Amino acid sequence: MVFQQLIERKRDGGALTEAEWAGVLADFVAGRIPEYQMSALLMAVVWRGLEPGELAALTDAMLASGDRLDFGTWITRRVDKHSTGGVGDKVSLVLAPLVACCGVAVPMMSGRSLGHTGGTVDKLESIPGFRTALEPREVERQVQRIGCAMFAQSEAIAPADRRIYALRDVSGTVSSIPLIAASIMSKKLAEDLNALVLDVKQGGGAFIPEQTAALELARTMVTLGQRHGCRTVALVTAMDRPLGRACGNALEIEEALLALEAQGPPDLAELTYALGAEMLVAAGVESDRGAARLRLQAAIASGQARAKFAEIVEAQGGNPGIVDDPGVLPQAQAVEVYQAQERGFVERVDARVIGEAIVSMGGGRQQLEDPIDPSVGFVITVKPGDHVASGEPIASIFARDEEGIRIGIAALDRAIGIGEKGTLPALITHRVTDQGVEALHSRAAAVSSPS
Amino acid sequence: MVFQQLIERKRDGGALTEAEWAGVLADFVAGRIPEYQMSALLMAVVWRGLEPGELAALTDAMLASGDRLDFGTWITRRVDKHSTGGVGDKVSLVLAPLVACCGVAVPMMSGRSLGHTGGTVDKLESIPGFRTALEPREVERQVQRIGCAMFAQSEAIAPADRRIYALRDVSGTVSSIPLIAASIMSKKLAEDLNALVLDVKQGGGAFIPEQTAALELARTMVTLGQRHGCRTVALVTAMDRPLGRACGNALEIEEALLALEAQGPPDLAELTYALGAEMLVAAGVESDRGAARLRLQAAIASGQARAKFAEIVEAQGGNPGIVDDPGVLPQAQAVEVYQAQERGFVERVDARVIGEAIVSMGGGRQQLEDPIDPSVGFVITVKPGDHVASGEPIASIFARDEEGIRIGIAALDRAIGIGEKGTLPALITHRVTDQGVEALHSRAAAVSSPS
Repeated sequence: MVFQQLIERKRDGGALTEAEWAGVLADFVAGRIPEYQMSALLMAVVWRGLEPGELAALTDAMLASGDRLDFGTWITRRVDKHSTGGVGDKVSLVLAPLVACCGVAVPMMSGRSLGHTGGTVDKLESIPGFRTALEPREVERQVQRIGCAMFAQSEAIAPADRRIYALRDVSGTVSSIPLIAASIMSKKLAEDLNALVLDVKQGGGAFIPEQTAALELARTMVTLGQRHGCRTVALVTAMDRPLGRACGNALEIEEALLALEAQGPPDLAELTYALGAEMLVAAGVESDRGAARLRLQAAIASGQARAKFAEIVEAQGGNPGIVDDPGVLPQAQAVEVYQAQERGFVERVDARVIGEAIVSMGGGRQQLEDPIDPSVGFVITVKPGDHVASGEPIASIFARDEEGIRIGIAALDRAIGIGEKGTLPALITHRVTDQGVEALHSRAAAVSSPS
Repeated sequence: MVFQQLIERKRDGGALTEAEWAGVLADFVAGRIPEYQMSALLMAVVWRGLEPGELAALTDAMLASGDRLDFGTWITRRVDKHSTGGVGDKVSLVLAPLVACCGVAVPMMSGRSLGHTGGTVDKLESIPGFRTALEPREVERQVQRIGCAMFAQSEAIAPADRRIYALRDVSGTVSSIPLIAASIMSKKLAEDLNALVLDVKQGGGAFIPEQTAALELARTMVTLGQRHGCRTVALVTAMDRPLGRACGNALEIEEALLALEAQGPPDLAELTYALGAEMLVAAGVESDRGAARLRLQAAIASGQARAKFAEIVEAQGGNPGIVDDPGVLPQAQAVEVYQAQERGFVERVDARVIGEAIVSMGGGRQQLEDPIDPSVGFVITVKPGDHVASGEPIASIFARDEEGIRIGIAALDRAIGIGEKGTLPALITHRVTDQGVEALHSRAAAVSSPS
């Protein structure tokens, strides 16, 4: 009866108190609120939104429902980066070891691939032996020892978020900016961070296509992080086309290794440095982003970052030999080169079509329990704005069999458009801090202009 | 997966097709759609509303989920009246026998009291022996034989509506005009009517306090009825104060008997004639409402309507002697006269406060299973606008015991306001047909002005 009145209040545009949100979460997790009432409340939240105090209370309650990392006082600078998900986004694989070389601890908790987007945990698991299922105490010890751990969100962290997300997923209540923000931030704040850098993806290959909504999500998460005493900065970045060239789990590990040797694609380097510079400044080890960027570049150039990656792989049970020989990664059975159908400028490389094709080819999943084949995917060497000749090789398809190759060809036919002119939209469009929103134009546009 | 997409489409402001609504209802009743998805869809409907085609399809699907009356071709004029619920509303008790005397069959299906509003079925059951639980075939036979039956909605009629209503009741999704309209009309259309007259109550004692919403509900139901080939007219009427003087089950039977002898309160007569005239015109037995009203008045004056009421009571197992001796009705154990606290004009008689007091005194119910005491209630002899002297008797309280009397006194203290001036708002404010909305000023205002 009381809970029903809370639903009605939210339905009519009112707000729940912080104590009421705490009670709702506790009662739902304890099974005292039935799912049919919770889903109605969630739909009312999609409709009416949450006031800042409500959002903070909901996030706190999710956070309080589970375990939290605790680094005590012996590691003073702890920063993580979180991406809202895209295609070809292997930034975490490069960034975690790189930042850990610069005096900042990185407890990097990641997700699995779902739908058309990839997940860092699945990418890491394509390294033979690599364990991502670390317990919180194990994460703390490893970060203390080598400055970094790359692990999957455990069942112990924010279980209330997990239960609510499962209900949202089947009740049409995923698409709410405050609910998305609470879900992400309740997990990130459980990492006991000093600072957090967010990569909010925007475009057809992201979960949020519209720029207005992406900016709103960025602002909401930044406000929420700051309110919890975690310095939070967000970059809004383009996810209309894939990031880098490789899309697919093992292929992206290989590309991340190239990036750690300064041989990766320019857009991947650009975004890695931009996010890394934010992390170093937010952690307080550098006072400006220019100096931070030079420090990051030096850690790549010196081989330190690459060595740190090997150290992490070894610490988590993987074969560190991968750094010298990516050939130990799973290899696709069928490989085919894809050629431009005509002469002209690349108008688009549709990230969502590519991501969905990887799922169809067995390299992603629709359900969290689906097994995946880490070897499949694409390497696409062109970007919008590039000029191509008819018959020029512009991509490679990696598949389990001929059927997979056929799916890959059809996907590339749909994803890549060639026409009379093409331009590459800016990679990094906005920087969002507690001071406001700053519009940016990334140098990546120039770096990857017609080759 | 497919159902979730329907939730998302409604959430985003889109419409479901007629086939989709039919499928949703069938799947929900069959248990193939879980309640947590249905409640989210219902909240999305509260948010986004329903397009006319969706509303018709939802209503059809509810209607199709159960049994329907079938009068074949042997009764050609079948009309019912439905009220959206109020306090002191005993119109059905007078109207059903009255209209049945004028050549129109009245299969009158009613509800029970719930919350602060009364229900015709409970009122009828205060007549010793009266059976309201008639099966559809029994209703058909009785209407064929004596032109009228007064019965409770059976489990067999629109079971999908019943299941959806139970879910709405606990998920904050009652307050949706299209859902209210579909719920009412799916039951009414199951009665195989030629015409339907609606009494849409508006004001503090109604489920819908605001005039705009009451008009919207009236328009929605009129459109829906017409679309189903049932001529439908609605009157929007005041439910800020109780209708008539008696409020409480047995007390209202007694007042209805007075009205059948032309001795009832003027506002009850006014509304009964207004609704009855609409019924006769809608049924086609009179061509204008003035002539219809004269015919109704004649049926009262001749004693025909009173005799028809006795005939119905007898047909349904009740004691027809009640018509000559209302003393056979349950009598309250405690009775107390309530006097005006001061001299002045009655500013308000709050129908909701009175209705809630009846529940507290044991004469109503919060849950459909609660037992009720038919004897308790109030007779309030003043209306807003009346002048009263200090100490003048203005109401009687009928209760089970002294505790009930105390509740009654406290309620009258709160419900009745006396001040320097008072006016009686019009009783019947609007007439809604498929031609549009007509603003009215009821004569009842003049009839019950300062006595």
